[in-house]
Amino acid sequence: MYVIQREGAVSFYAPDLSKYIAGGRIEPAWAPVFYNPAMANNRSISVIIVRAYLRLLGRNGVLCEPFTGTGVRSIRYVKEAGVEKVIAGDIDDAAVNLASRNVELNGLRDQIKVTRSDANALLANNKCDIIDVDPYGSPAPFINSALLSIKHGGLLCATATDLAVLQGSYVNKAIRRYGFRPLRGFLSREIGLRGLLGFIARQALVIDAGVKPLLAYWERHYYRVCLIVSKDRGTARETAGNLGYAYYCSESLRRGFIKGYPIGVKGECAVSGPLWIGAIGDVEFLDYSLSLINNTDYELKAAEIIKGTLPDNLPIPLYYTVTELGRGLGFVPSPLRLRAYLMENGIEAYGTHFTTDGVKTNAEPWRLIRIIHSIPLTNN
Amino acid sequence: MYVIQREGAVSFYAPDLSKYIAGGRIEPAWAPVFYNPAMANNRSISVIIVRAYLRLLGRNGVLCEPFTGTGVRSIRYVKEAGVEKVIAGDIDDAAVNLASRNVELNGLRDQIKVTRSDANALLANNKCDIIDVDPYGSPAPFINSALLSIKHGGLLCATATDLAVLQGSYVNKAIRRYGFRPLRGFLSREIGLRGLLGFIARQALVIDAGVKPLLAYWERHYYRVCLIVSKDRGTARETAGNLGYAYYCSESLRRGFIKGYPIGVKGECAVSGPLWIGAIGDVEFLDYSLSLINNTDYELKAAEIIKGTLPDNLPIPLYYTVTELGRGLGFVPSPLRLRAYLMENGIEAYGTHFTTDGVKTNAEPWRLIRIIHSIPLTNN
Repeated sequence: MYVIQREGAVSFYAPDLSKYIAGGRIEPAWAPVFYNPAMANNRSISVIIVRAYLRLLGRNGVLCEPFTGTGVRSIRYVKEAGVEKVIAGDIDDAAVNLASRNVELNGLRDQIKVTRSDANALLANNKCDIIDVDPYGSPAPFINSALLSIKHGGLLCATATDLAVLQGSYVNKAIRRYGFRPLRGFLSREIGLRGLLGFIARQALVIDAGVKPLLAYWERHYYRVCLIVSKDRGTARETAGNLGYAYYCSESLRRGFIKGYPIGVKGECAVSGPLWIGAIGDVEFLDYSLSLINNTDYELKAAEIIKGTLPDNLPIPLYYTVTELGRGLGFVPSPLRLRAYLMENGIEAYGTHFTTDGVKTNAEPWRLIRIIHSIPLTNN
Repeated sequence: MYVIQREGAVSFYAPDLSKYIAGGRIEPAWAPVFYNPAMANNRSISVIIVRAYLRLLGRNGVLCEPFTGTGVRSIRYVKEAGVEKVIAGDIDDAAVNLASRNVELNGLRDQIKVTRSDANALLANNKCDIIDVDPYGSPAPFINSALLSIKHGGLLCATATDLAVLQGSYVNKAIRRYGFRPLRGFLSREIGLRGLLGFIARQALVIDAGVKPLLAYWERHYYRVCLIVSKDRGTARETAGNLGYAYYCSESLRRGFIKGYPIGVKGECAVSGPLWIGAIGDVEFLDYSLSLINNTDYELKAAEIIKGTLPDNLPIPLYYTVTELGRGLGFVPSPLRLRAYLMENGIEAYGTHFTTDGVKTNAEPWRLIRIIHSIPLTNN
């Protein structure tokens, strides 16, 4: 039933996923213990972030992982990131047994304690420096417990795989679960991630805490966020100042953020929120993290994702897509050539990790459209 | 240090509050264990609600009280409401000792278990049918844990004493703590209570649960809410439908609720929310509760408060105050006489428990003003 698997720098027992294939696709949720190889890069990226965080923390901390499954994430944190103590939990007996076996296999019995526990109860019963919430689906029901459990200055990482909700396929579900109205269309990926960040920020404010994202990104089937949680009123006030709304006007192509509260917003443009309108990452911290990576395939791959997010932290709200800008042209302009042309003409323009079609620039939409219509920016 | 105190049908040891007087006012927060005699009526009202709830539940349930203090509330629930089992907790050793002594004094050792515990941890470690959250200040940091702990169909009661925040003296604090913009002025009391209800409702939605208020009221220094929590998507959808915004236009005197999301709200009127725009109580349940009261001074006093809230559940959004309606008249009309006059003329008009100055009616403001200006409705 279980086979030896390798991921990052560690080996561990995992379900033989070749036995759980549906319609040609591996279905990790069908296995007796959840293990998703598609999340290996998520874990490698997290290792890099936690390693850098620990270096800056300057002391040993306790890491809590309430959905441990095979235990691979916790084992990697100890082996690859230098975490000294982990409290790992799972509600499922098979997972607890397998994770314990994997902890033994890696000789980490003194560092990783695996317990059978409901996720919220695990968090309520332990004060943690680092918390990694990686549930199957939405992290929303566990954020409050994580915020209560985490120590002042702690690192909270969470994964969300319910992208259909956050990106606007189920608007009412997003309003219910995350208390935020999403936005379908060109900006849905960035807006969804900001909706998730905004939800966490608002939950922090309830307990007079604040958050500062170190890294937040989208990868095909999930969002991942890592934030510093500070339990002081000053950070709470700053956090409140980073909450607002996004607007998108499909006629004029204007887009941007609105600070504060949505009162008085005109109905002519689509409005989404409340969401996080501040920086989604800390470029200085990310640069430091990247300076610590090892020269392995998996860390280099993880570093690529981290690097990709850097332009998204520039003080330019949202991005354009060449698809919208090229409407009526009969072809989609090349985003690379458009960005190059803009830069050559003294207009700042960057990519975004949210889409290869994106152009991040402060230029007004009418100016961009005039440029596209006046120069030969074909795809080939 | 402790003296025998009597409240409702029980006796118990409480701090000698005559020793904790500041500026002529009793300061219960200074005593070694918190006991506030001003909350006796809150407890009597709760006893009536819990008694009726248990009768309808038709089985013995577990009640959790995470801020037990002297234990008086839990003891009263057992003695007066018929609760069979209580898990009471307090973070403070002196309170745990005193509550245990009071449990002994009342011969309830088999029914009330007092433990030293953080409030959120107590809730995380126990599944409860009834939860009473009566903290010093805001209940906000404990609502999520209570919602996770409570069983499907359970009864959640919470007290809020941070009225200055909920009623708009500290707008940014309300936005942070309750994620809602309050409204100063004539409607602040009702809007504040609806803001609290809306906060609890939104926290329920995060975990796919919904709420239905049985009783929610204001009394001079606190709000109190009792709600049924249902952990099914149908109730969650209904709950989402009861969230919205309130508007108030100080020129035209128009006021009302807006369903759903605030997008497109015009800036000319004050807008408050998101808040609960549904009924704040269940009249049928309250009638049943009142049918079970005992003929004691304290239950009769409690029943008066409950009865006072009944008109606030009519499908009439918000109320007018005679102060606004009488502006420019040179006198404040009598609310009793105005209501009587309206009723005589076929216009429904009721009082509200939020203020003795209130008139609850569906009549348009211009009509009310015309009436007040045309008839002699002086105070005397």
